Amino acid sequence: MTSELVLGQYPVATGYSEAVQADETDPLARFRDEFVNTDPDLIYMDGNSLGRLPKGAIDLVDAVVHQQWGDHLIRSWNEGWWTLQLELGDKLAPIVGASDGEVIISDSTSVNLFKLAAAAVRGRPGRTKIVTDDLNFPSDVYILDGVARVFGLELVIVPSDGIYGPVQGLSEAIDADTALVSLSHTTFKSGYTYDMEAVTALAHHSDAFILWDTSHSVGAVPIDFASAGVDLAVGCTYKYLNGGPGSPAFLYVRKELQDQLGNPITGWWGHADPFGFGLEFQPIDGIRRYHSGTMPMLSLAAVETGLDTVLDAGMDAIRAKSVTLSEYFISQTELHLEPLGFQIASPVDPRWRGSHVSLGHEEAYGITRAIIERAKVIPDFRAPDNLRLGLSPLYTSFVEVHTGIQRIREVVERGIHNEYGDITVTVT
Amino acid sequence: MTSELVLGQYPVATGYSEAVQADETDPLARFRDEFVNTDPDLIYMDGNSLGRLPKGAIDLVDAVVHQQWGDHLIRSWNEGWWTLQLELGDKLAPIVGASDGEVIISDSTSVNLFKLAAAAVRGRPGRTKIVTDDLNFPSDVYILDGVARVFGLELVIVPSDGIYGPVQGLSEAIDADTALVSLSHTTFKSGYTYDMEAVTALAHHSDAFILWDTSHSVGAVPIDFASAGVDLAVGCTYKYLNGGPGSPAFLYVRKELQDQLGNPITGWWGHADPFGFGLEFQPIDGIRRYHSGTMPMLSLAAVETGLDTVLDAGMDAIRAKSVTLSEYFISQTELHLEPLGFQIASPVDPRWRGSHVSLGHEEAYGITRAIIERAKVIPDFRAPDNLRLGLSPLYTSFVEVHTGIQRIREVVERGIHNEYGDITVTVT
Repeated sequence: MTSELVLGQYPVATGYSEAVQADETDPLARFRDEFVNTDPDLIYMDGNSLGRLPKGAIDLVDAVVHQQWGDHLIRSWNEGWWTLQLELGDKLAPIVGASDGEVIISDSTSVNLFKLAAAAVRGRPGRTKIVTDDLNFPSDVYILDGVARVFGLELVIVPSDGIYGPVQGLSEAIDADTALVSLSHTTFKSGYTYDMEAVTALAHHSDAFILWDTSHSVGAVPIDFASAGVDLAVGCTYKYLNGGPGSPAFLYVRKELQDQLGNPITGWWGHADPFGFGLEFQPIDGIRRYHSGTMPMLSLAAVETGLDTVLDAGMDAIRAKSVTLSEYFISQTELHLEPLGFQIASPVDPRWRGSHVSLGHEEAYGITRAIIERAKVIPDFRAPDNLRLGLSPLYTSFVEVHTGIQRIREVVERGIHNEYGDITVTVT
Repeated sequence: MTSELVLGQYPVATGYSEAVQADETDPLARFRDEFVNTDPDLIYMDGNSLGRLPKGAIDLVDAVVHQQWGDHLIRSWNEGWWTLQLELGDKLAPIVGASDGEVIISDSTSVNLFKLAAAAVRGRPGRTKIVTDDLNFPSDVYILDGVARVFGLELVIVPSDGIYGPVQGLSEAIDADTALVSLSHTTFKSGYTYDMEAVTALAHHSDAFILWDTSHSVGAVPIDFASAGVDLAVGCTYKYLNGGPGSPAFLYVRKELQDQLGNPITGWWGHADPFGFGLEFQPIDGIRRYHSGTMPMLSLAAVETGLDTVLDAGMDAIRAKSVTLSEYFISQTELHLEPLGFQIASPVDPRWRGSHVSLGHEEAYGITRAIIERAKVIPDFRAPDNLRLGLSPLYTSFVEVHTGIQRIREVVERGIHNEYGDITVTVT
């Protein structure tokens, strides 16, 4: 096996001219230039895992390093650091249909999920169940299981068909013993996207709390926590929000619940008077109650440009392009990849789909490695047989979709993926 | 009140020539140049709160932003990101007397404290108490209280005299009902520093776990978890380790306990096969079990230079300079500041003191603001009557100590602090 690229010039195939035309009339085309792209020949279809670097984030990080840390030192805490996670939360709020003071940037998605799931089950004493499904991101299931063990509850994992959310099964599982229902809004593998309002209503029908993980939808799929009546939510800022590697996550608590529930990780950032240094914990009112400790400022500051970009583009335009891109991707897949053993492992109706498309193939692992190393197409692999291709409306073009599929086709037609075997890791 | 600086030239007073001489013969003098210093006239005595920016960290952050995020994108997870928190943990280990595989960089100090305190109390089922003292950092007390509430235990806060650790009181409070003893190694306010080995033995005598918070000692005070037999510890990387604002904290779990205890926040980073995406949580063996979710890579990467610098200087030399600096600071305080109403609110014997010195003064708040805004001396204020002055052996000079005390003296002698009144926030 050599690591040399096998593909140089890519054939112009059915659909290329339509792709060129779609890019020319794309109302979001101008946003491509707002992201760093060091290799225009790379087809990056993993923005659902790690979004590209917005050019504006470079200056924000530079300012934190040089002016704020290097020069102003501790004084920077009083010059913006102390409240940045609130300001960025307020900036994120309209992207998810929340109001000022309902969102903060805080910790990792896992830690936020733990805090809010614990808050919810303590808010429904006597109830014995947490309900989720088998499409949820496994780490979320682990966290919910951890919360269930700490508080002596049972975790019920409702089975699905592997692609569509088991709405009927959920409605049967959710009952008067259910403290909390927690699901991924867009599921990490198939991209199935729940009707947030309908499933929230199912939970509320049994007076259970709902906790949505929007990691795989926020910034790509319209979300309206307010109109859906959502209680609690978490989400990732480094996927479609382009906040940077491992950038702190966000959490949402509906205003009416904020002072009623409590964060189990009672650190000073959630104290009513953190600099009074009293020994008794007095939770602050409002969303800050769900903070714990000090935020990583370099990573936190970098989040802002990604949010600005999404706000500038607008969620309606983003969703429109996302659907058009994915429909084009699916039609090209049917034409060029299905004859090579690929199956579409996502809902075909865009109403039930987020902004990534999963393809099943029994040699998915070898194909993933081959297209990364030999054809400059970056998807990610989800064991055992899944390629996940993310379409980021702010920077993925129709020509990239076309070219990407042609490169995958050539790799598989020529059997190049047979040179690749063992499984290594990639990260969502 | 004007914001103009009142002090220009500073008098040469008793002790200045000794300060010059001490700087000239300082074996750590070369390290001053390894930190950014944009204003040589600023006397920065808050490195115990936020350490200075090491020049090498600038390049590290640049590399994460441009090469790793901007160019390599998701591939960077397989090119170092996925294991960086382990490598930095191993790098930190010798600074605290730990072995490879006993330390990871992870989350905030508060979240780590929650994880390890919960692990400890679950490891001693049936026991009913967590023991701490009133010198502990209040946020730690809040977290321990939160853990006690979740698991139905009682938190016992042993009172001190406000300066010295209540060792006798602790020894009376720790008994066969005690699951966990958790204390700050160097206390945040007085700087009192516990005999780690003796107090660990007290806990172990009752078969309780010990959990040390080393935030205010690590990188300034020698620590040897192995020889002290420490079970669990956490600590901050942004104080004397100079890791950057809010940089992720570290946690330590003694090797023999790692597989015996469990992290309550069971995220995929603590799973034995995180990319198998099974739905059942299978904790990984070893220290990685105490991870939860994805790390903020910009802030994480910046930690490395600070660790390298401390390792290069060596903890013995750092401690020697810390003691000499603080002794000089105290002698100058006795000479110049005690006549102005200041009292030393730290242990006078260096064996019981970390690397900051607290001064009591009934007008401490006004003095703090006046010396920051008018005399370019940065301490921090701890309510109600405390100025805390941090001496960072890697970059604080003896002349800075001398000059700083002269400037404080002039501010108070001239009554400039009377122009300052209301309390605002600063952050530890």
